[in-house]
Amino acid sequence: MNKPAGRVLHGYFRSSAAYRVRIALAWKGLAYRQAPVSLIKGEQQADGYRRLNPQGLVPALEDGGRVLTQSLAICEYLEEAYPDTPRLLPDDVVARAEVRALAQQIACDLHPLNNLRVLRYLVEVLGTDDAQKQRWYAHWTQEGLAAFESTLARTAGMYCVGDTVSLADVCLVPQVFNARRFDVDLAPYPRLQAVAGRLEALPAFEAAHPARQPDAA
Amino acid sequence: MNKPAGRVLHGYFRSSAAYRVRIALAWKGLAYRQAPVSLIKGEQQADGYRRLNPQGLVPALEDGGRVLTQSLAICEYLEEAYPDTPRLLPDDVVARAEVRALAQQIACDLHPLNNLRVLRYLVEVLGTDDAQKQRWYAHWTQEGLAAFESTLARTAGMYCVGDTVSLADVCLVPQVFNARRFDVDLAPYPRLQAVAGRLEALPAFEAAHPARQPDAA
Repeated sequence: MNKPAGRVLHGYFRSSAAYRVRIALAWKGLAYRQAPVSLIKGEQQADGYRRLNPQGLVPALEDGGRVLTQSLAICEYLEEAYPDTPRLLPDDVVARAEVRALAQQIACDLHPLNNLRVLRYLVEVLGTDDAQKQRWYAHWTQEGLAAFESTLARTAGMYCVGDTVSLADVCLVPQVFNARRFDVDLAPYPRLQAVAGRLEALPAFEAAHPARQPDAA
Repeated sequence: MNKPAGRVLHGYFRSSAAYRVRIALAWKGLAYRQAPVSLIKGEQQADGYRRLNPQGLVPALEDGGRVLTQSLAICEYLEEAYPDTPRLLPDDVVARAEVRALAQQIACDLHPLNNLRVLRYLVEVLGTDDAQKQRWYAHWTQEGLAAFESTLARTAGMYCVGDTVSLADVCLVPQVFNARRFDVDLAPYPRLQAVAGRLEALPAFEAAHPARQPDAA
């Protein structure tokens, strides 16, 4: 591990987006300090945090005086700023596109519909009851994971794209954690389950698990 | 313009994600043929299209026998596969992260909540009425554009990041089009409006406008 050098991750143990960045940092062996932001207490909306990230969302990464936001942009930044660390994108242009497309299937099409602020809006503004909220959650997760499973049939080896860990894997594991937490049955997605199982056993993925973070409740 | 060489964009004139790819292709001077997929008629769910893109979403780009999906992954692919065309990402690592973060503010945090399949689910499954649907649309758009406006205060010059057109701009213009269509007042976002106004006057952005596409209704 190299020195943190002013590297601070502002995140929340159960945030899928923060979880992705923790995996990427661990995979690359980049040390960092954690500054927990409690989404449950609404700390992401506080003026202090908004000065760091005007969006009021986690994660934000401070790295040597720079402030980076958006989990996928942070991962691409780490890939480019620390080219000598283990990679998360392959060299081949088409394989890179496959990795990014899978990452975005989760980060753009699945996760945004099921995160805390959206589930809260459903309940607090639309008056959705628990059963409807669970149905919403399951609907988008099942639709997203089914599409991911179909794509894996074309791309997967040991991991999401071939036999090398990539940004697609970094996105898959937090989404699987999230789906289990909401009792979504993963049995219809055998390839996805097999890949996730292999990933979860890797030290970088273990270290990034929500239960192992300082703010884990 | 170079020859299409089997370059086919499967899209829909009003899809923000397809609109992004049209802008990127036009910006780079890459010729292509359009294969419209009517989201209104549900053609994205048909077996034929699903064989091309198992996700059943637009856009998909065929390029010399390759099939690319996910609008941002497609734009990054075009950037890497055609390095001699006009760029959409700056050279500097931090500026690249700023561009990607702004693009993802729209592509991951704003647009996914307001696209057609989600608005349909609200109405058809949750029984949301028109006023609530409009309120949902406006809520996420206003929250997203307000954050974007705050970020522009740090990053913008003539365009979203400095004085060079980038992937952030490619995402902004379709979102502004979408917001106007749903009557969201853009007056609270003067920087965003100014940048969007400059972008909309550029030939590549004009050529990609929904009204100018073959399937425009």
